[in-house]
Amino acid sequence: MVQAKRKAKSEPLVRGEAVVRGVLAATLREVARAGYHGLRIEDVAALAGVNKTTVYRRWPTKQELVRDALLSIASDTFAVADSGSLREDLLAIARRIAARGAQAEYQGLFRLFVVEGDDPELAAIVRSLRANFEAVPRAVLEAAERRGEIAPGVDANLLFDVLGAALNRRLFFDRAPVDDAWLQRLVDLLLHGALARGPARAAG
Amino acid sequence: MVQAKRKAKSEPLVRGEAVVRGVLAATLREVARAGYHGLRIEDVAALAGVNKTTVYRRWPTKQELVRDALLSIASDTFAVADSGSLREDLLAIARRIAARGAQAEYQGLFRLFVVEGDDPELAAIVRSLRANFEAVPRAVLEAAERRGEIAPGVDANLLFDVLGAALNRRLFFDRAPVDDAWLQRLVDLLLHGALARGPARAAG
Repeated sequence: MVQAKRKAKSEPLVRGEAVVRGVLAATLREVARAGYHGLRIEDVAALAGVNKTTVYRRWPTKQELVRDALLSIASDTFAVADSGSLREDLLAIARRIAARGAQAEYQGLFRLFVVEGDDPELAAIVRSLRANFEAVPRAVLEAAERRGEIAPGVDANLLFDVLGAALNRRLFFDRAPVDDAWLQRLVDLLLHGALARGPARAAG
Repeated sequence: MVQAKRKAKSEPLVRGEAVVRGVLAATLREVARAGYHGLRIEDVAALAGVNKTTVYRRWPTKQELVRDALLSIASDTFAVADSGSLREDLLAIARRIAARGAQAEYQGLFRLFVVEGDDPELAAIVRSLRANFEAVPRAVLEAAERRGEIAPGVDANLLFDVLGAALNRRLFFDRAPVDDAWLQRLVDLLLHGALARGPARAAG
């Protein structure tokens, strides 16, 4: 599915698709371990079992390599669930983020952005990926809007940002377990809010 | 107010209160800069302008010193607002967190927990402070419950954790501005939820 998406985005990967995937996976692992400044193309090539020139031919700069590596996560983690219910869609995405977050590599990536996020090159990568990362949340929210599930004026990006932030805090800051009961409490808080409904409810 | 609270907690600080405050402020600044492992009592003493033995006399271990320094934030940042409205209380606390987060020192503390949070000594400090950090959120939520504002079954700690997580993400990960309009959108999402009310609303 990731492959099909990339092709559709006018990046022809007919040959060498396995090599590309291998290099991007090695890049994620290395950048999570060594940081953006510490990342060396030689180490990525060695880990992927390819020649250094193979990496440089496709990604002339470290910036382009890291950008493509981060992009490969986005399409995968945020693949549209489209279950017909916003609650189920959010739960499916939250479960995928939680499964990813259990891997040491993703803790390394989180650390990368906290520690090196001020770096101008890394910040430029994140800015350039913002549209990619927001496409799926937007699709999920638009489908929910068409079904009449969403309250008017709700900020779709904020909803997904808060969901991701709560998961990151639980995983990488509190280092507490993410079980399905917790995920459901989180999603239900975001869907229903904390306020009582009915006459006692304070006006927003 | 902090002073009054500490006294009430049977920590007599009649003399040397200014010294204690100075040492704790220096500890926060140094631990944010150098990390937990990199923290040196000599540097704290020098920054606070006191003798090393003055620090050791009150805090025999680094662990006790850092614990007291972190505790000094908790009572201050999470001081009860008690405005009579949950929305106003949450906004007051969120504004205080946002103001703190604008200081480089707090970015350093966030980084400390992301990078060194697995350290057993630091983890033990956090566990021992959990009750202190949860006291005020609980008081705010209990007051809202008494006013009938809160929906039954809402997890008070989760609500505050999500609020803090969203602020931390915005401040230290996205490095995006926190203005009052954004704070209000965040608080209103947590209070009202994303779902439309009325017949079109999907059952939770």
